[in-house]
Amino acid sequence: MGEKQKIVIIGGVAAGPKAAARARRRNPDAEIIMLERGELTSYAGCGMPFFISDMVRDYNQLFMTAYGVKRDAQYFGREKGVKLYTRTEAKAIDRDKKEVKAVNLNTGEEMVFPYDQLVIATGATPFEPPIEGRDLKGVHKLNHPEDALRIKEAVDTGEIERAVVIGAGLIGLEGADALFNKMVDVTIIELQPQVLPGMLDADIAEKLHQHMKEEDVDLSLGDKVLRIEGDEEGKVKGVVTEKRGFIECQMVLMAAGVRPNVELAKEAGLEIGKTGAIVVNDSMQTSDPFIYACGDCVENTHLITGEKVYTPMATYANRQGRVVGDNITGGNSRFRGVLGTGVAEIFEMKVARTGLGEFQAKEKGYNVVTALHTAFDRTHYHPAHGMMVIKVIADADSRRILGAQAIGKAEVAKRIDVIATAITFGAKIDDLHDLDLGYAPPFSAPIDPVVHAVNFIGNKFEGLATGISAKEFKEKVERGDDMVLLDVRTQEQFAPKHFEDDRVMLVTLSDLRERINEIPKDKEIITICAMGSRAYEASRILHGAGFKNVKVLEGGLNAWPYDLEFEKK
Amino acid sequence: MGEKQKIVIIGGVAAGPKAAARARRRNPDAEIIMLERGELTSYAGCGMPFFISDMVRDYNQLFMTAYGVKRDAQYFGREKGVKLYTRTEAKAIDRDKKEVKAVNLNTGEEMVFPYDQLVIATGATPFEPPIEGRDLKGVHKLNHPEDALRIKEAVDTGEIERAVVIGAGLIGLEGADALFNKMVDVTIIELQPQVLPGMLDADIAEKLHQHMKEEDVDLSLGDKVLRIEGDEEGKVKGVVTEKRGFIECQMVLMAAGVRPNVELAKEAGLEIGKTGAIVVNDSMQTSDPFIYACGDCVENTHLITGEKVYTPMATYANRQGRVVGDNITGGNSRFRGVLGTGVAEIFEMKVARTGLGEFQAKEKGYNVVTALHTAFDRTHYHPAHGMMVIKVIADADSRRILGAQAIGKAEVAKRIDVIATAITFGAKIDDLHDLDLGYAPPFSAPIDPVVHAVNFIGNKFEGLATGISAKEFKEKVERGDDMVLLDVRTQEQFAPKHFEDDRVMLVTLSDLRERINEIPKDKEIITICAMGSRAYEASRILHGAGFKNVKVLEGGLNAWPYDLEFEKK
Repeated sequence: MGEKQKIVIIGGVAAGPKAAARARRRNPDAEIIMLERGELTSYAGCGMPFFISDMVRDYNQLFMTAYGVKRDAQYFGREKGVKLYTRTEAKAIDRDKKEVKAVNLNTGEEMVFPYDQLVIATGATPFEPPIEGRDLKGVHKLNHPEDALRIKEAVDTGEIERAVVIGAGLIGLEGADALFNKMVDVTIIELQPQVLPGMLDADIAEKLHQHMKEEDVDLSLGDKVLRIEGDEEGKVKGVVTEKRGFIECQMVLMAAGVRPNVELAKEAGLEIGKTGAIVVNDSMQTSDPFIYACGDCVENTHLITGEKVYTPMATYANRQGRVVGDNITGGNSRFRGVLGTGVAEIFEMKVARTGLGEFQAKEKGYNVVTALHTAFDRTHYHPAHGMMVIKVIADADSRRILGAQAIGKAEVAKRIDVIATAITFGAKIDDLHDLDLGYAPPFSAPIDPVVHAVNFIGNKFEGLATGISAKEFKEKVERGDDMVLLDVRTQEQFAPKHFEDDRVMLVTLSDLRERINEIPKDKEIITICAMGSRAYEASRILHGAGFKNVKVLEGGLNAWPYDLEFEKK
Repeated sequence: MGEKQKIVIIGGVAAGPKAAARARRRNPDAEIIMLERGELTSYAGCGMPFFISDMVRDYNQLFMTAYGVKRDAQYFGREKGVKLYTRTEAKAIDRDKKEVKAVNLNTGEEMVFPYDQLVIATGATPFEPPIEGRDLKGVHKLNHPEDALRIKEAVDTGEIERAVVIGAGLIGLEGADALFNKMVDVTIIELQPQVLPGMLDADIAEKLHQHMKEEDVDLSLGDKVLRIEGDEEGKVKGVVTEKRGFIECQMVLMAAGVRPNVELAKEAGLEIGKTGAIVVNDSMQTSDPFIYACGDCVENTHLITGEKVYTPMATYANRQGRVVGDNITGGNSRFRGVLGTGVAEIFEMKVARTGLGEFQAKEKGYNVVTALHTAFDRTHYHPAHGMMVIKVIADADSRRILGAQAIGKAEVAKRIDVIATAITFGAKIDDLHDLDLGYAPPFSAPIDPVVHAVNFIGNKFEGLATGISAKEFKEKVERGDDMVLLDVRTQEQFAPKHFEDDRVMLVTLSDLRERINEIPKDKEIITICAMGSRAYEASRILHGAGFKNVKVLEGGLNAWPYDLEFEKK
């Protein structure tokens, strides 16, 4: 009789515990050891902002199972049959001897763990830009529950009037949101010209900027932090940026992204990818067949481009952990890749995205067609309805859907999940016109926003619609192009909110057929309404009457992310 | 130069107006005529229950566009370029002459409309079972906005203490819900042994029964209405049923389903299917190539079985209308079929389904495997989380997903839409384990309920899990099978809520490994917990210790739809 299989797992936060639990369920006899250098294991990192904002009141909730048991060494031992060593850092992997050298960080005791299969789930670490003053008291990151605890304690003193958040990625914005909810004024500094630069296209991001402005969130884009300044006690007193100069604040949150923890893998000679993360195949095996890796320390394959990407996400960590748990116990599971699907609620605005963004898709050489559509998430007469702007990105050559993004105080996540599912199966535009999604007034409209947006792309393919984006429209107006901004809403809708420009002409849709001769046939016409559908209808009427140069302002005024007055150039 | 294309559309509610509008956008020159026998057109039939319950306060909302314009003859004429004749009933189709004979119901004037393309969108009519007393005052149906108006007026008199609803399909339940919200006591009589018989599997329906019971909704299943009784003034005073005898009530809502309006098509010699609805191909063309049909009067093709089904739904009407609008103007669009996706909110409980139910799938000869899973719709620590029971139905031979159903005060519609999308592309279980759905705590869990449920089916395929349904479990317990009901929750969870039976044994999961010898190895073991995951974990521990006959109570106590006490047999 052979010895028991020995499985060693380095990392006890998300992917590691998942791999351990799954391996145990498949192999009751294996010896499963999990090493975690921190004190805490299997915590809900994504819950930290909600703990800061008091939405999650009990710190322990971040470490609990859904059935109220704390996930500590006792839990792993007794429920999962996994031997967990906390405060135990893996220092080296000897691939020939198949053993891991580790040290107990409390006692300094050195230990050696032989393995048959090794799992690296070492996660990621916040990137700390080399900014002067980053060691001052009051400078935080948000990577670990203890960070959240420290931030919350500081905020609860009542002494934090303003916090500066460096970085407008997901962690930066969620952290800013949490602080804002605790009545802390927030200034967000972002190097890129938009928030969530890795996630959203510029037009969708502009809608979020507009919303944040309305909420009095201070945002400095395309700006760079020069230094953090402290007082005599070594406490933060302000941040100096290129654009803003000195910003007084009592707290700084550094959220400049994360980097994969690959030192251990690198030193062991495992292959590291161009992304800087560990290379794995679709079995989650590293370049050493006895060593698997998963979670925030590995790179992923993009399902559309086939390229390697670094996309550290909790959901990938969990699903990859399960695949590893299968494969280290004789199973044959695959993690085929990612679409970069993401969703967030930021200052009560919901944003979601999947697949390639417009810019990414163009960069990859696709013949990109997009549709931007404004829609209600349920029937407009249902009181719970909310409005969203949804954008679909497709390839005109193959007609494949490449990606989608949505924003609104509405059920955007549902629509993006549907499109993510469709993309997974290589969906073409034509596959989605008659998609059988559930309809009832509290849930959707008879034609779901997904189908509407896809229909709009179909209309473009057929030459029935020509759109113009808000950005392009703004540029044309500001450079003084000779054109008609044809608003087709009613007088009552027009009066309180319309573009301030003398090229604007109001012809309500219902009057358009009889007033069509008033519209100059030789000029470029941009049709405008609230959500886009009347403008489209108007463009068809104009087209039918022989107008050749008609474009629809995509998504209408509800998708418009800028001021209604234009700059004169 | 040829004459203008003449398009005649019979029916002005949902599919008809959609076909008209789409045709107009594609062909600016066609003459488009729409005939509607009622006064009202293009109304939101699905909004009627919400109008009764005061959720939609203004009756006109049911006839408005999202931008606040009433969809009447003026709207169709001026905005859509469609000539609408209301109160005009089509009486006959002369296919040789290609003309429709119609009559103005107000004036009696007869009219003839020649067509190049004809569209039949005559909808459906409520089926009225031949019950004595169905003509009494106070007997309503809910098919037309005027029905809703009449019901609301009656309720608003304050004289309706109890209403009896005949039929527990979607319209019956939504109507009952609306009345209930207006403080009317409701008794629902259903011939079948469950509510929503065409929509839900029995186990999911049982959860809805349980909920309705908790809400004090009176439900009489497997019961038949014998007659409706009236007073001297001809007003309803009660209903007599087989099981209940006399039920005093002041209102009756007849909701025994609908039948397609096919007389006109039938008399014109068009093919009518076995379902009783008009036969169309996937271009929505009838057996006469110049005549199209769409909406509640046509039969659909089921995307999984390929069989013809009658599934009148507003969303199909709208999407089919668009396909017709394309095809009658030289386009080439397809409506490929339906999955019977449906969603509803009934007494604040959300239910959704798509594809085949378990029973349907078995009937069709599939080698059916199901998984019933209880899950939170977001992370359990997020205060907005809700619990759902989700069931996935798959074919063990092809591993294809055949259907799914879900119920809960949670975001069930999103999960069913994702699965509907996956089924559309012929998804196999193995395609969904690593589905890239958006995750953040306000929206989902790191492993989405869809993926969890699919993983559970995968576990069954691999032999890692054996489940037992609530129904089967109840039957076994009640017939006195010798087995152990092994509850693995904590003492604190067990104490307030557990099965009342002397075969119950409590061994908390964390103690199971050390107390395993207390459990009789020769008996059948059913593991039990709150949501199913600990019971599954326990089953793996027992299996690893050599237990051969272990089953998991699927979905745990949260999915349990019956009382906790068993009948002795």
